[in-house]
Amino acid sequence: MDFNLDRSVDVLVRTPAALQALLGGLPDSWSRGTEGPDTFSAFDVVGHLIDGEETDWMPRAALILAAGSDARFEPYDRFRHRARNVNRSLDDLLDEFARLRAANLELLHSWRLGPAQLERTGIHPTFGAVTLRQLLAAWVVHDLEHVAQVARVMAKQYFEAVGPWVRFLPVLTDHERPRS
Amino acid sequence: MDFNLDRSVDVLVRTPAALQALLGGLPDSWSRGTEGPDTFSAFDVVGHLIDGEETDWMPRAALILAAGSDARFEPYDRFRHRARNVNRSLDDLLDEFARLRAANLELLHSWRLGPAQLERTGIHPTFGAVTLRQLLAAWVVHDLEHVAQVARVMAKQYFEAVGPWVRFLPVLTDHERPRS
Repeated sequence: MDFNLDRSVDVLVRTPAALQALLGGLPDSWSRGTEGPDTFSAFDVVGHLIDGEETDWMPRAALILAAGSDARFEPYDRFRHRARNVNRSLDDLLDEFARLRAANLELLHSWRLGPAQLERTGIHPTFGAVTLRQLLAAWVVHDLEHVAQVARVMAKQYFEAVGPWVRFLPVLTDHERPRS
Repeated sequence: MDFNLDRSVDVLVRTPAALQALLGGLPDSWSRGTEGPDTFSAFDVVGHLIDGEETDWMPRAALILAAGSDARFEPYDRFRHRARNVNRSLDDLLDEFARLRAANLELLHSWRLGPAQLERTGIHPTFGAVTLRQLLAAWVVHDLEHVAQVARVMAKQYFEAVGPWVRFLPVLTDHERPRS
């Protein structure tokens, strides 16, 4: 599937409601469980997505549009949320993510991006020149990556409870590494 | 996390709304894409979850409660939905899944299950004796498995579009095998 701005927004606009439906009001036993030391809980994932809205995707897109083709992205801090969200509730974070995403999509819409702008480039700290089109596609996939992660991390809280069913539920033995 | 009936319902009750938020009204380019031949699209996953409501989890739970400890489950048909849902729309399937799930949770609640009933067993066609407790836990994990699958399969439709970001988005190179 080729990149398409409207098709990208189709996903980006749905993520906050999907996470609210999955996680809103959920007890800590589901939302605070992890896959092991230094991995994200569902709560951490929502904090990480908030960081993405504030410091990653749209700030980098704006830099590409504002600067020349050598616009160099700031490195992204995967753990900013850890200190930021102490004492916050999950429902509060879900609301904040929804507000930030809505504002970012409004800003994106206001840019009325055309093909020439989507081909503009910036410099990613790890892999060099990337187009605005690739950055926006990665924003979409990043959302879906973390929806999948939330479901996987929750599932693993029942690793023992399913008994022999573990053989038929491969989500229980998937990745243990944190991912961003 | 030990099995807990209320904590299980916490997840089971949220899955239909989570899928509606993620998939409701989504164009076919997202919902009909797969990971390759003989793998599920998001549309297929919702059909598979409907099959689970009608032929798998609660029918097997009812059999455990109705029969003796040697209640033998019917083998489950992973592809029933393929013929069943030709010409159906995704939104129609999402509504049907929500109705079936609500009815099943009402039935589950009506059973007022206690510890003794949760220890009753049935015979799974592949791995033999399983408890009702394990079956209900597996129902929860199966939901989460397929939420993760939907997000992963959608993400892969943008495999090419993200360019070099594929290195930082492992969901794009996860499982290509169909899973149930």
